[in-house]
Amino acid sequence: MIRALELARRGIRGANPLVGALILDPAGQVLSSGFHRGAGSPHAEAAALAAAEAAGIDVIGATMVVTLEPCNHTGRTGPCSQAIEKAGIARVVYAAADSTAEAGGGAAALSAAGVEAEGGLMAAEAAELNHRWIRAMGDSRPFVTVKTAQTLDGMTAAEDGTSQWITGSAARADGHGIRSRADAVVVGTGTVLADDPQLTARDAEGRTAERQPLRVVVGSRPVPDDAAIRGSDGRFLQLAEHDPAAICRKLYARGVRHLMVEGGATVTSAFLRAGLADELVAYVAPLLLGAGTSAVSGLGVHTLADASRWRWDETGAGPARLVGSDLRLRLEPVPEPPSNERLPSGKRT
Amino acid sequence: MIRALELARRGIRGANPLVGALILDPAGQVLSSGFHRGAGSPHAEAAALAAAEAAGIDVIGATMVVTLEPCNHTGRTGPCSQAIEKAGIARVVYAAADSTAEAGGGAAALSAAGVEAEGGLMAAEAAELNHRWIRAMGDSRPFVTVKTAQTLDGMTAAEDGTSQWITGSAARADGHGIRSRADAVVVGTGTVLADDPQLTARDAEGRTAERQPLRVVVGSRPVPDDAAIRGSDGRFLQLAEHDPAAICRKLYARGVRHLMVEGGATVTSAFLRAGLADELVAYVAPLLLGAGTSAVSGLGVHTLADASRWRWDETGAGPARLVGSDLRLRLEPVPEPPSNERLPSGKRT
Repeated sequence: MIRALELARRGIRGANPLVGALILDPAGQVLSSGFHRGAGSPHAEAAALAAAEAAGIDVIGATMVVTLEPCNHTGRTGPCSQAIEKAGIARVVYAAADSTAEAGGGAAALSAAGVEAEGGLMAAEAAELNHRWIRAMGDSRPFVTVKTAQTLDGMTAAEDGTSQWITGSAARADGHGIRSRADAVVVGTGTVLADDPQLTARDAEGRTAERQPLRVVVGSRPVPDDAAIRGSDGRFLQLAEHDPAAICRKLYARGVRHLMVEGGATVTSAFLRAGLADELVAYVAPLLLGAGTSAVSGLGVHTLADASRWRWDETGAGPARLVGSDLRLRLEPVPEPPSNERLPSGKRT
Repeated sequence: MIRALELARRGIRGANPLVGALILDPAGQVLSSGFHRGAGSPHAEAAALAAAEAAGIDVIGATMVVTLEPCNHTGRTGPCSQAIEKAGIARVVYAAADSTAEAGGGAAALSAAGVEAEGGLMAAEAAELNHRWIRAMGDSRPFVTVKTAQTLDGMTAAEDGTSQWITGSAARADGHGIRSRADAVVVGTGTVLADDPQLTARDAEGRTAERQPLRVVVGSRPVPDDAAIRGSDGRFLQLAEHDPAAICRKLYARGVRHLMVEGGATVTSAFLRAGLADELVAYVAPLLLGAGTSAVSGLGVHTLADASRWRWDETGAGPARLVGSDLRLRLEPVPEPPSNERLPSGKRT
């Protein structure tokens, strides 16, 4: 299961949890493995089965070790419980139970089909890996990725309002990659009126990606008829809402399971303040401004002990990676109350 | 020379330039190699000679390839020109010339001693690697490392002034490592009065390091008689100065070749604004405050095109590294005018 959790960590956060799977022969030797590479890709179980099939390995009577209870529903991919049974797997050992109404019930379905299914092994570790995803699904809201582009000193614009471009083209293309995996992208009316963004997912050459998110403007100011964000594909929506919880609720009802928040500072800060940011992706340009518009403000934090606390996300490509001339940082909220180390504890050294 | 430059990049910036050296036999096979690991460590040439000796390799008649003209003076270590000649090296090929009054003249000394010495191979690359060090020495001032400890949104303190601790103990210990290599550490009177720091170099267990920097307070407000920074080792100095250039000049005259600027925001920003920061080390805590005291301010930048421009430093341990619960970022000023990509060039996407 440790190995399966390591595999899970290679995935990309978003609409689905991070999951890893191994197929073992009766002697405990690994026959094949797989992990979930993000929305639209095969689930870890399906990836492991496909890898075995591609290698011509017989998995009849084998054991599958997987970090999450196999799903029991047809989403973008078919139900894993069925695929496992059809492949002839005799036993499934999983870590965390899938308690979502949508996908839960896989273990029971497997048992009913004669496949031994046993859960709970390293369940705490598996749950921590996806703690924010579990929380989002438990609250019936999308998993929320907040993206910022800032200078090293935390600014998104200079004093005179100039902000084009804080980050370079490679960082912008990387951000478009997140757009292409998300179900919806949100900006405020202020950003629409100031920048007139298209908000589509495009590759480095400017070509429109195959998969496009719903483009959502939140706020009550009217969006001009000729605003680029309206597009011509019908994937545009304005919500006269400022409350992140209400925005999440309405978008979840429309099927949005992964929401990307692109700003500006007001919308970003509202999601952060509401605790509705499950992942933070910050593109940091090697620039200093010393003054200007902060990427984040109005969190209601007056003293250090009340700071918004995160941890570096070591899954996927890791917490810090050069993307062109900029640095991409990835963080997730801390899952437990912080240790005492950061609380005021004496004088500075 | 490419290989020697790669070796050079592994070093630590500071009082000395980054240098790499290889010793080759007449057939061009590498016999040994070395690089400079920071102040007080052997120069690259000496390291390569020592490595050959330790391995019992005969270097008589061999060629040394080195990224900088071998030094001709006795500093913390003896003159490399002499060591090379004594070892029996027949030929030295170097990249950049050493034009400093202190250490220059190595090639001439080698030639006079009968060792063939030839410079200029990949001199531009070698010079760029140390462009800020060369500039500092050319200006007869110390190489300046500016260290900050900030939240992800660029704050060094919350609205109510609390700042203990923004970063964790591992980041603080890492910062003490820089102190132990620097010749002097500078803070402003405001920091002394607010935090009463010792400003000594200590290891993770709080033990005082063997090598201690000169502790310098800049500013005219009096330092209390019982201030911790005074210590009892005589390595304390107050300069009634606010101008970074004057501070650098006075400390250089006292033999300081590597200066570490530790804050507060006023002193840090003064060095940045004066262009007297050759290296920036930022410890970034995974915290958001949304308000408070900025790590950097008053740079006199009003528009993005005038931003203070840096690049990620890929030498040594690289531009971004987790240090405990914090991220250590390393940057250096861009050596040339920036490309047009970041200048205002159209609407946001």
